[in-house]
Amino acid sequence: MHPVAGLPEFAPGDDLAGAVAGAAPWLADGDVVVVTSKVVSKVEGRLVRVPAGADREAVRLQAIEDEAVRVVARRGPLAIVQTGQGWVVAAAGIDASNVEPDLLVLLPEDGDASARALRDRLATLLGVDVAVVVSDTFGRTWREGLTDVAVGAAGLPALIDHRGAVDAHGNRLETTRIALVDELASAADLVKGKLEGVPVAVVRGLRTERPDPDPGTRPLVRLPGDDLFPYGSRDLVPSRAPSAELVPRPGDLEAVADAFRIASAALPEFPVVLRYGGEDDGVVDVHLTDAVTTTTALNLGALLGAAIVQLHAGGWATRWEPAATAGGTSLVGRLWLGTAPS
Amino acid sequence: MHPVAGLPEFAPGDDLAGAVAGAAPWLADGDVVVVTSKVVSKVEGRLVRVPAGADREAVRLQAIEDEAVRVVARRGPLAIVQTGQGWVVAAAGIDASNVEPDLLVLLPEDGDASARALRDRLATLLGVDVAVVVSDTFGRTWREGLTDVAVGAAGLPALIDHRGAVDAHGNRLETTRIALVDELASAADLVKGKLEGVPVAVVRGLRTERPDPDPGTRPLVRLPGDDLFPYGSRDLVPSRAPSAELVPRPGDLEAVADAFRIASAALPEFPVVLRYGGEDDGVVDVHLTDAVTTTTALNLGALLGAAIVQLHAGGWATRWEPAATAGGTSLVGRLWLGTAPS
Repeated sequence: MHPVAGLPEFAPGDDLAGAVAGAAPWLADGDVVVVTSKVVSKVEGRLVRVPAGADREAVRLQAIEDEAVRVVARRGPLAIVQTGQGWVVAAAGIDASNVEPDLLVLLPEDGDASARALRDRLATLLGVDVAVVVSDTFGRTWREGLTDVAVGAAGLPALIDHRGAVDAHGNRLETTRIALVDELASAADLVKGKLEGVPVAVVRGLRTERPDPDPGTRPLVRLPGDDLFPYGSRDLVPSRAPSAELVPRPGDLEAVADAFRIASAALPEFPVVLRYGGEDDGVVDVHLTDAVTTTTALNLGALLGAAIVQLHAGGWATRWEPAATAGGTSLVGRLWLGTAPS
Repeated sequence: MHPVAGLPEFAPGDDLAGAVAGAAPWLADGDVVVVTSKVVSKVEGRLVRVPAGADREAVRLQAIEDEAVRVVARRGPLAIVQTGQGWVVAAAGIDASNVEPDLLVLLPEDGDASARALRDRLATLLGVDVAVVVSDTFGRTWREGLTDVAVGAAGLPALIDHRGAVDAHGNRLETTRIALVDELASAADLVKGKLEGVPVAVVRGLRTERPDPDPGTRPLVRLPGDDLFPYGSRDLVPSRAPSAELVPRPGDLEAVADAFRIASAALPEFPVVLRYGGEDDGVVDVHLTDAVTTTTALNLGALLGAAIVQLHAGGWATRWEPAATAGGTSLVGRLWLGTAPS
């Protein structure tokens, strides 16, 4: 791992590839050039200027909101959001260090495109076939401290897939896909440091293939269906659809059964006998089979409210349609389930 | 970064330090020796043997349960749990690769103690002052692919604290603490690989101080109060106390107000006029101020159930005490709030 020393301060429009080629003429085929996203953002003009007299913190919060496609969790001034590229990161990755005090630095708009452009220009300038990783510093859910990860890559696989490989003992590796570009970003950070003004490091000696087509860092983005933590535990944000637009999806009965089971376990003080059923076509009838009293209605309501929150947490959109009560036992209402059109 | 080649297969009771000293006699002061946790666990006998004829998957699930102090999230056979050391990791870090087919490998019981012991023995055997990192392969919340992180360390700081430092532009770095030992674990994984039987790598040239006392990896463990993701969004596990044992804590009224506000936003189809209040002493009276009908009771119940789930999500334990209804408007019940005694 080699730091690239002697790089200048960068500003919008500067020739990053030219500066790297000048400072590291020793670059060779197969090297991985790891570049701090901040200098990429600077040369690409991904900066927000705080107007004179404006409240810097207000400008920063607005910039976070502008960059976020989704808020994952909040606590006080901390917002963990998902960016347009799919990264889940505190403050949308917006940074105010190592830059003039009246500027905020956004993440590159498309780190993979930035990496490809730098790779191509280095090939032209130096005649070398290098890979490029654009790195940024992210926090982690359950571990203190930050590490560098990749927010862009070109010329190397983001993931090394060991699934299906067999170890020396004959065990098949089931789940092992290594996030190569994230490990490279972390490794490079060891020689770059945060304060020393060394935004580029080179990793030499790594043997990888060149993917074609090159998906960059796209394989690192976890898709919503695989995300067990789409929002914080204190952020039970409902995902509801306008009632007229709910798109039915299969699995509603099973989901409702799960949700009522969990709600009943969570709320044992609200005992009630209920029955529910349907055709797995997006409509579940909910019956109260106890005698209908204000107490049994309150108890059923509690389970229903908890179950609906649970369904929202599982990605369902819901609509409740009350039915008129009649007699001693009654159909209480219908729960419509489905997907909210995006 | 140097792989340490030529190490043997390890078994319980083997001399790991002796083997490393023999394979890497070139170790020097200041080197960081990164050891895959699996070989540490093997020499320490942290293995579970699957009895002949037993269901390997059942043994594995039992081992996960035995290792877990807390389940964070589940999906199908996947369980993300917290271990006794505080690591939040899928399957309690239990692994079945690179080991005989009838064995399961647990994480080291105290990775910091393992690292200290290895460091001390290498000092004795080779007369060198090295640091040691014990690494394991963990997944991440919102990124596909795994990276190596530290589950034990000795002789170097887990975190490098840049907070309060000033960059070249005069900006104070507010939140930057770098997880040095995790970045070292990731870097070392680049030269160790998963299939090549190279469980040890050495990082040379890192300048760090030796902490005294040495907290190992303890600073990496995120404490519960700072954890925004104590469980998965599909795992709304209530944290309830036996009613007699609830310990009141201040802030109940504000928490209830928050919870009802969120519940009302999530469940607009359950409109109801309610009033709540108390003395911030752990008991909140909940009134229905609409006329008491089965419909208004159902609607209030829905908000109450959703609000209680929200309160549980925020770490409150609750108890609901229904009141007899009387007349046109009524006290519906009392919500007791507090902390579940642990």
